[in-house]
Amino acid sequence: MKIGTHSFEEYLDRVQAFHGSVAPGMLAGGIMVTIARERLPEGEIFDVISESGHCLPDAVQLLTPCTIGNGWLRIVNTGRYALILYNKYTGFGVRVYLDAQKLAGFPAVRGWFLRELPKPEQDLDAIVQEFRSAGPDIFGVQKVRVKPEHIQGLKKVHAAIAICPVCKEAYTSDLGDTCPACRGTAPFLVVQDGGAAGS
Amino acid sequence: MKIGTHSFEEYLDRVQAFHGSVAPGMLAGGIMVTIARERLPEGEIFDVISESGHCLPDAVQLLTPCTIGNGWLRIVNTGRYALILYNKYTGFGVRVYLDAQKLAGFPAVRGWFLRELPKPEQDLDAIVQEFRSAGPDIFGVQKVRVKPEHIQGLKKVHAAIAICPVCKEAYTSDLGDTCPACRGTAPFLVVQDGGAAGS
Repeated sequence: MKIGTHSFEEYLDRVQAFHGSVAPGMLAGGIMVTIARERLPEGEIFDVISESGHCLPDAVQLLTPCTIGNGWLRIVNTGRYALILYNKYTGFGVRVYLDAQKLAGFPAVRGWFLRELPKPEQDLDAIVQEFRSAGPDIFGVQKVRVKPEHIQGLKKVHAAIAICPVCKEAYTSDLGDTCPACRGTAPFLVVQDGGAAGS
Repeated sequence: MKIGTHSFEEYLDRVQAFHGSVAPGMLAGGIMVTIARERLPEGEIFDVISESGHCLPDAVQLLTPCTIGNGWLRIVNTGRYALILYNKYTGFGVRVYLDAQKLAGFPAVRGWFLRELPKPEQDLDAIVQEFRSAGPDIFGVQKVRVKPEHIQGLKKVHAAIAICPVCKEAYTSDLGDTCPACRGTAPFLVVQDGGAAGS
Protein backbone atom coordinates (compact mmCIF):
# COMPACT_ATOMS: atom_id res chain seq x y z
CA MET A 1 0.00 0.00 0.00
CA LYS A 2 1.21 3.49 -0.89
CA ILE A 3 0.50 6.51 1.31
CA GLY A 4 0.50 9.42 -1.10
CA THR A 5 3.68 8.90 -3.11
CA HIS A 6 5.44 7.16 -0.21
CA SER A 7 5.86 3.54 0.72
CA PHE A 8 4.16 2.65 3.98
CA GLU A 9 7.54 2.58 5.79
CA GLU A 10 8.65 5.93 4.36
CA TYR A 11 5.40 7.44 5.54
CA LEU A 12 5.93 6.09 9.07
CA ASP A 13 9.37 7.76 9.13
CA ARG A 14 7.89 11.05 8.01
CA VAL A 15 5.15 10.80 10.62
CA GLN A 16 7.73 10.21 13.34
CA ALA A 17 9.75 13.25 12.22
CA PHE A 18 6.84 15.69 11.87
CA HIS A 19 4.24 14.49 14.34
CA GLY A 20 6.66 13.17 16.97
CA SER A 21 5.20 9.67 17.17
CA VAL A 22 3.51 7.03 15.02
CA ALA A 23 0.01 7.73 16.32
CA PRO A 24 -2.87 5.59 14.99
CA GLY A 25 -4.66 8.71 13.78
CA MET A 26 -1.74 9.48 11.49
CA LEU A 27 -2.15 6.07 9.83
CA ALA A 28 -5.87 6.64 9.39
CA GLY A 29 -5.20 10.16 8.08
CA GLY A 30 -2.57 9.00 5.60
CA ILE A 31 -4.91 6.43 4.10
CA MET A 32 -7.79 8.93 4.07
CA VAL A 33 -5.80 11.57 2.20
CA THR A 34 -4.68 8.92 -0.29
CA ILE A 35 -8.25 7.72 -0.91
CA ALA A 36 -9.51 11.28 -1.40
CA ARG A 37 -6.74 12.33 -3.78
CA GLU A 38 -7.30 9.27 -5.98
CA ARG A 39 -10.94 10.34 -6.38
CA LEU A 40 -10.27 13.99 -7.24
CA PRO A 41 -9.95 14.95 -10.91
CA GLU A 42 -6.34 14.93 -12.13
CA GLY A 43 -4.67 18.29 -11.47
CA GLU A 44 -7.51 19.57 -9.24
CA ILE A 45 -6.52 22.59 -7.14
CA PHE A 46 -8.00 21.66 -3.78
CA ASP A 47 -8.43 22.92 -0.24
CA VAL A 48 -9.00 20.67 2.75
CA ILE A 49 -11.37 20.68 5.72
CA SER A 50 -10.51 18.41 8.62
CA GLU A 51 -13.48 17.62 10.86
CA SER A 52 -11.13 16.84 13.76
CA GLY A 53 -8.11 18.63 15.20
CA HIS A 54 -6.51 15.36 16.32
CA CYS A 55 -3.80 13.94 14.06
CA LEU A 56 -5.70 14.37 10.77
CA PRO A 57 -4.41 17.91 10.12
CA ASP A 58 -0.85 16.61 10.32
CA ALA A 59 -1.52 13.87 7.76
CA VAL A 60 -2.85 16.56 5.41
CA GLN A 61 0.16 18.80 6.02
CA LEU A 62 2.57 15.91 5.36
CA LEU A 63 0.90 14.72 2.16
CA THR A 64 -0.55 17.79 0.44
CA PRO A 65 0.44 21.42 -0.18
CA CYS A 66 -2.28 22.44 2.30
CA THR A 67 -1.21 23.73 5.72
CA ILE A 68 -2.90 25.56 8.58
CA GLY A 69 -0.67 28.59 8.07
CA ASN A 70 -1.26 28.97 4.34
CA GLY A 71 -5.01 28.68 4.84
CA TRP A 72 -5.58 25.80 2.41
CA LEU A 73 -6.32 23.51 5.37
CA ARG A 74 -8.91 24.43 7.94
CA ILE A 75 -10.39 22.61 10.90
CA VAL A 76 -14.17 22.58 11.30
CA ASN A 77 -14.67 20.48 14.40
CA THR A 78 -17.68 18.19 14.13
CA GLY A 79 -16.17 15.66 16.52
CA ARG A 80 -16.01 13.12 13.67
CA TYR A 81 -12.98 11.53 12.07
CA ALA A 82 -13.29 12.80 8.52
CA LEU A 83 -11.53 14.82 5.85
CA ILE A 84 -12.88 16.74 2.85
CA LEU A 85 -10.72 17.54 -0.18
CA TYR A 86 -12.60 19.93 -2.49
CA ASN A 87 -12.21 22.23 -5.44
CA LYS A 88 -11.23 25.54 -3.94
CA TYR A 89 -13.66 27.54 -6.09
CA THR A 90 -16.69 25.29 -6.69
CA GLY A 91 -16.62 23.43 -3.36
CA PHE A 92 -17.27 20.04 -5.03
CA GLY A 93 -15.13 17.33 -3.56
CA VAL A 94 -14.67 14.07 -1.72
CA ARG A 95 -15.26 13.33 1.96
CA VAL A 96 -13.59 10.32 3.56
CA TYR A 97 -14.38 9.05 7.05
CA LEU A 98 -13.27 6.19 9.23
CA ASP A 99 -16.39 4.01 9.33
CA ALA A 100 -17.16 2.66 12.79
CA GLN A 101 -19.54 0.13 11.19
CA LYS A 102 -16.69 -1.65 9.40
CA LEU A 103 -14.37 -2.41 12.29
CA ALA A 104 -15.67 -5.83 13.32
CA GLY A 105 -12.62 -7.60 11.92
CA PHE A 106 -10.15 -5.05 13.25
CA PRO A 107 -10.20 -5.21 17.06
CA ALA A 108 -7.02 -3.22 17.64
CA VAL A 109 -8.16 -0.31 15.44
CA ARG A 110 -11.61 -0.51 17.02
CA GLY A 111 -10.18 -0.44 20.55
CA TRP A 112 -8.26 2.70 19.70
CA PHE A 113 -10.86 4.48 17.55
CA LEU A 114 -13.87 3.97 19.79
CA ARG A 115 -11.70 4.45 22.90
CA GLU A 116 -12.78 1.05 24.15
CA LEU A 117 -9.27 0.40 25.45
CA PRO A 118 -7.29 2.82 27.62
CA LYS A 119 -4.15 4.01 25.87
CA PRO A 120 -1.68 1.84 27.85
CA GLU A 121 -3.60 -1.26 26.78
CA GLN A 122 -3.62 -0.41 23.08
CA ASP A 123 -1.22 -2.47 20.97
CA LEU A 124 0.38 -0.06 18.49
CA ASP A 125 2.01 -2.82 16.42
CA ALA A 126 -1.34 -4.57 16.03
CA ILE A 127 -3.01 -1.27 15.09
CA VAL A 128 -0.37 -0.61 12.43
CA GLN A 129 -0.78 -4.11 11.01
CA GLU A 130 -4.56 -3.84 10.93
CA PHE A 131 -4.48 -0.48 9.14
CA ARG A 132 -2.03 -1.97 6.68
CA SER A 133 -4.15 -5.02 5.92
CA ALA A 134 -7.45 -3.09 5.94
CA GLY A 135 -6.24 -0.34 3.63
CA PRO A 136 -9.26 1.55 2.27
CA ASP A 137 -11.78 -1.12 3.37
CA ILE A 138 -12.64 0.49 6.72
CA PHE A 139 -13.34 3.93 5.32
CA GLY A 140 -16.43 5.47 3.77
CA VAL A 141 -16.50 7.93 0.88
CA GLN A 142 -19.03 10.62 -0.06
CA LYS A 143 -19.19 13.09 -2.88
CA VAL A 144 -19.92 16.41 -1.21
CA ARG A 145 -20.24 20.10 -1.90
CA VAL A 146 -18.71 22.44 0.66
CA LYS A 147 -21.04 25.28 1.61
CA PRO A 148 -20.11 28.67 0.12
CA GLU A 149 -19.41 30.24 3.53
CA HIS A 150 -16.69 27.63 4.09
CA ILE A 151 -15.00 28.04 0.70
CA GLN A 152 -11.81 30.02 1.19
CA GLY A 153 -11.35 30.77 -2.50
CA LEU A 154 -14.53 32.87 -2.45
CA LYS A 155 -13.41 35.29 0.26
CA LYS A 156 -10.16 37.01 -0.43
CA VAL A 157 -10.79 40.45 1.08
CA HIS A 158 -8.64 40.99 4.14
CA ALA A 159 -9.77 43.34 6.90
CA ALA A 160 -7.77 46.51 7.52
CA ILE A 161 -5.16 46.47 10.26
CA ALA A 162 -5.66 48.85 13.19
CA ILE A 163 -3.62 49.62 16.30
CA CYS A 164 -5.45 48.49 19.42
CA PRO A 165 -5.91 51.58 21.67
CA VAL A 166 -5.32 49.44 24.78
CA CYS A 167 -2.31 47.20 24.05
CA LYS A 168 -0.97 49.28 21.11
CA GLU A 169 -0.44 46.14 19.05
CA ALA A 170 -1.65 45.77 15.48
CA TYR A 171 -4.78 43.64 15.01
CA THR A 172 -7.33 42.87 12.31
CA SER A 173 -9.90 45.62 12.71
CA ASP A 174 -12.90 43.48 11.78
CA LEU A 175 -12.69 41.96 15.26
CA GLY A 176 -13.87 45.12 17.05
CA ASP A 177 -12.84 48.53 18.42
CA THR A 178 -10.11 46.94 20.54
CA CYS A 179 -8.36 43.65 19.92
CA PRO A 180 -10.22 40.66 21.36
CA ALA A 181 -7.41 40.03 23.86
CA CYS A 182 -8.00 43.43 25.48
CA ARG A 183 -11.68 42.56 25.84
CA GLY A 184 -10.77 39.62 28.06
CA THR A 185 -10.08 36.72 25.72
CA ALA A 186 -6.27 36.77 26.06
CA PRO A 187 -5.10 33.26 26.91
CA PHE A 188 -2.36 34.60 29.21
CA LEU A 189 -1.38 37.19 31.84
CA VAL A 190 1.69 39.38 31.42
CA VAL A 191 4.28 38.66 34.12
CA GLN A 192 6.90 41.13 32.91
CA ASP A 193 7.02 43.37 29.89
CA GLY A 194 10.36 42.71 28.33
CA GLY A 195 10.32 45.50 25.76
CA ALA A 196 12.45 45.09 22.69
CA ALA A 197 13.60 41.65 21.60
CA GLY A 198 16.83 43.02 20.21
CA SER A 199 18.17 44.38 23.49
CA MET B 1 21.16 35.63 11.38
CA LYS B 2 20.08 32.06 12.20
CA ILE B 3 16.44 30.97 12.09
CA GLY B 4 16.25 28.15 14.58
CA THR B 5 19.21 25.96 13.67
CA HIS B 6 19.06 26.98 9.99
CA SER B 7 20.85 29.62 8.00
CA PHE B 8 18.51 32.29 6.65
CA GLU B 9 18.73 30.77 3.15
CA GLU B 10 18.05 27.23 4.37
CA TYR B 11 15.01 28.50 6.20
CA LEU B 12 13.70 30.20 3.04
CA ASP B 13 14.02 26.87 1.20
CA ARG B 14 12.11 25.06 3.93
CA VAL B 15 9.41 27.71 3.91
CA GLN B 16 9.00 27.33 0.16
CA ALA B 17 8.68 23.56 0.47
CA PHE B 18 6.23 23.48 3.37
CA HIS B 19 4.26 26.71 3.10
CA GLY B 20 4.30 26.94 -0.70
CA SER B 21 5.74 30.45 -0.92
CA VAL B 22 8.13 32.77 0.90
CA ALA B 23 5.42 34.82 2.59
CA PRO B 24 6.46 37.77 4.79
CA GLY B 25 4.62 36.26 7.73
CA MET B 26 6.85 33.19 7.55
CA LEU B 27 9.92 35.44 7.94
CA ALA B 28 8.35 37.21 10.91
CA GLY B 29 7.33 33.87 12.39
CA GLY B 30 10.78 32.33 11.96
CA ILE B 31 12.42 35.21 13.79
CA MET B 32 9.72 35.17 16.49
CA VAL B 33 10.16 31.46 17.21
CA THR B 34 13.94 31.96 17.36
CA ILE B 35 13.64 34.86 19.82
CA ALA B 36 11.26 32.90 22.05
CA ARG B 37 13.33 29.72 22.13
CA GLU B 38 16.47 31.64 23.08
CA ARG B 39 14.62 33.00 26.11
CA LEU B 40 13.20 29.68 27.34
CA PRO B 41 15.20 27.70 29.90
CA GLU B 42 17.50 25.11 28.30
CA GLY B 43 15.65 21.84 27.72
CA GLU B 44 12.22 23.33 28.50
CA ILE B 45 9.32 21.15 27.32
CA PHE B 46 7.05 23.73 25.76
CA ASP B 47 3.71 24.12 24.01
CA VAL B 48 2.85 26.99 21.70
CA ILE B 49 -0.11 29.33 21.27
CA SER B 50 -0.31 31.31 18.04
CA GLU B 51 -2.53 34.38 18.29
CA SER B 52 -3.03 34.35 14.51
CA GLY B 53 -3.88 31.62 12.03
CA HIS B 54 -1.97 33.33 9.22
CA CYS B 55 1.54 32.00 8.51
CA LEU B 56 2.70 31.90 12.16
CA PRO B 57 1.47 28.33 12.79
CA ASP B 58 3.59 27.12 9.88
CA ALA B 59 6.74 28.77 11.24
CA VAL B 60 6.10 26.95 14.53
CA GLN B 61 5.52 23.65 12.76
CA LEU B 62 8.74 24.04 10.74
CA LEU B 63 10.95 25.01 13.67
CA THR B 64 9.62 23.16 16.71
CA PRO B 65 8.17 19.72 17.56
CA CYS B 66 4.78 21.40 18.02
CA THR B 67 2.11 20.82 15.36
CA ILE B 68 -1.62 21.38 15.08
CA GLY B 69 -2.26 17.64 14.85
CA ASN B 70 -0.22 16.63 17.89
CA GLY B 71 -1.88 19.32 19.98
CA TRP B 72 1.28 21.04 21.16
CA LEU B 73 0.42 24.05 18.94
CA ARG B 74 -2.93 25.75 19.21
CA ILE B 75 -4.39 28.86 17.67
CA VAL B 76 -6.18 31.33 19.93
CA ASN B 77 -7.16 34.09 17.53
CA THR B 78 -6.78 37.53 19.06
CA GLY B 79 -6.20 39.16 15.66
CA ARG B 80 -2.64 40.05 16.75
CA TYR B 81 0.65 38.85 15.33
CA ALA B 82 2.11 37.08 18.33
CA LEU B 83 3.37 33.71 19.55
CA ILE B 84 3.65 32.28 23.06
CA LEU B 85 6.06 29.46 23.90
CA TYR B 86 5.39 28.21 27.44
CA ASN B 87 6.11 25.41 29.87
CA LYS B 88 3.42 22.86 29.17
CA TYR B 89 2.65 22.28 32.86
CA THR B 90 3.23 25.61 34.63
CA GLY B 91 2.18 27.92 31.78
CA PHE B 92 5.13 30.27 32.34
CA GLY B 93 6.69 31.36 29.09
CA VAL B 94 7.65 33.97 26.56
CA ARG B 95 5.40 35.97 24.24
CA VAL B 96 6.87 37.59 21.14
CA TYR B 97 4.98 40.05 18.93
CA LEU B 98 5.74 42.08 15.86
CA ASP B 99 5.76 45.64 17.24
CA ALA B 100 3.95 48.12 15.00
CA GLN B 101 5.63 50.97 16.93
CA LYS B 102 9.09 49.97 15.70
CA LEU B 103 8.56 49.94 11.96
CA ALA B 104 9.46 53.54 11.10
CA GLY B 105 12.73 52.51 9.48
CA PHE B 106 11.26 49.52 7.69
CA PRO B 107 8.79 50.79 5.09
CA ALA B 108 8.45 47.53 3.16
CA VAL B 109 7.67 45.48 6.28
CA ARG B 110 5.32 48.23 7.47
CA GLY B 111 3.51 48.33 4.13
CA TRP B 112 2.90 44.60 4.35
CA PHE B 113 2.18 44.29 8.08
CA LEU B 114 -0.23 47.20 8.43
CA ARG B 115 -1.74 46.41 5.01
CA GLU B 116 -0.91 49.93 3.86
CA LEU B 117 0.03 48.59 0.44
CA PRO B 118 -2.12 46.26 -1.65
CA LYS B 119 -0.40 42.94 -2.22
CA PRO B 120 0.61 43.56 -5.87
CA GLU B 121 2.47 46.69 -4.77
CA GLN B 122 4.43 44.98 -2.00
CA ASP B 123 8.10 44.36 -2.79
CA LEU B 124 8.92 40.89 -1.46
CA ASP B 125 12.68 41.28 -1.97
CA ALA B 126 12.67 44.50 0.03
CA ILE B 127 10.59 42.87 2.76
CA VAL B 128 13.04 39.97 3.00
CA GLN B 129 16.00 42.34 3.21
CA GLU B 130 14.34 44.47 5.87
CA PHE B 131 13.50 41.45 8.02
CA ARG B 132 17.07 40.29 7.62
CA SER B 133 18.61 43.60 8.65
CA ALA B 134 16.07 44.25 11.43
CA GLY B 135 16.39 40.80 12.99
CA PRO B 136 14.91 40.92 16.51
CA ASP B 137 14.80 44.74 16.67
CA ILE B 138 11.22 45.10 15.43
CA PHE B 139 9.74 42.61 17.88
CA GLY B 140 8.58 42.95 21.47
CA VAL B 141 8.97 40.35 24.20
CA GLN B 142 6.92 39.69 27.33
CA LYS B 143 7.21 37.14 30.09
CA VAL B 144 3.73 35.68 30.44
CA ARG B 145 1.79 32.99 32.22
CA VAL B 146 -0.76 31.10 30.16
CA LYS B 147 -4.11 30.78 31.92
CA PRO B 148 -4.82 27.29 33.30
CA GLU B 149 -7.81 26.72 31.00
CA HIS B 150 -5.48 27.10 28.02
CA ILE B 151 -2.76 24.76 29.29
CA GLN B 152 -3.02 21.48 27.41
CA GLY B 153 -0.82 19.56 29.84
CA LEU B 154 -3.45 20.02 32.56
CA LYS B 155 -6.31 18.36 30.70
CA LYS B 156 -5.62 14.88 29.48
CA VAL B 157 -9.02 13.23 29.89
CA HIS B 158 -10.56 12.42 26.53
CA ALA B 159 -14.32 12.22 26.12
CA ALA B 160 -15.89 8.89 25.29
CA ILE B 161 -16.65 8.09 21.66
CA ALA B 162 -20.30 7.57 20.70
CA ILE B 163 -22.05 6.64 17.47
CA CYS B 164 -24.18 9.53 16.22
CA PRO B 165 -27.80 8.25 15.93
CA VAL B 166 -28.30 10.34 12.79
CA CYS B 167 -25.21 9.89 10.61
CA LYS B 168 -23.99 6.69 12.32
CA GLU B 169 -20.45 8.02 12.42
CA ALA B 170 -18.30 7.98 15.54
CA TYR B 171 -17.92 11.33 17.35
CA THR B 172 -16.67 12.67 20.67
CA SER B 173 -19.70 12.39 22.94
CA ASP B 174 -18.97 15.52 24.96
CA LEU B 175 -20.27 17.52 21.99
CA GLY B 176 -23.91 16.49 22.49
CA ASP B 177 -26.52 13.79 21.88
CA THR B 178 -25.85 13.87 18.15
CA CYS B 179 -22.69 14.99 16.42
CA PRO B 180 -22.55 18.76 15.80
CA ALA B 181 -22.70 18.21 12.03
CA CYS B 182 -26.14 16.58 12.34
CA ARG B 183 -27.34 19.60 14.31
CA GLY B 184 -26.63 21.83 11.30
CA THR B 185 -22.99 22.82 11.59
CA ALA B 186 -21.70 20.52 8.82
CA PRO B 187 -19.62 22.59 6.41
CA PHE B 188 -20.89 20.60 3.40
CA LEU B 189 -23.87 18.91 1.73
CA VAL B 190 -23.70 15.29 0.58
CA VAL B 191 -24.02 15.00 -3.20
CA GLN B 192 -23.68 11.22 -3.41
CA ASP B 193 -23.01 8.64 -0.76
CA GLY B 194 -20.21 6.58 -2.15
CA GLY B 195 -20.19 3.82 0.46
CA ALA B 196 -17.02 1.88 0.98
CA ALA B 197 -13.69 3.36 -0.08
CA GLY B 198 -12.31 -0.07 -0.87
CA SER B 199 -14.83 -0.87 -3.59
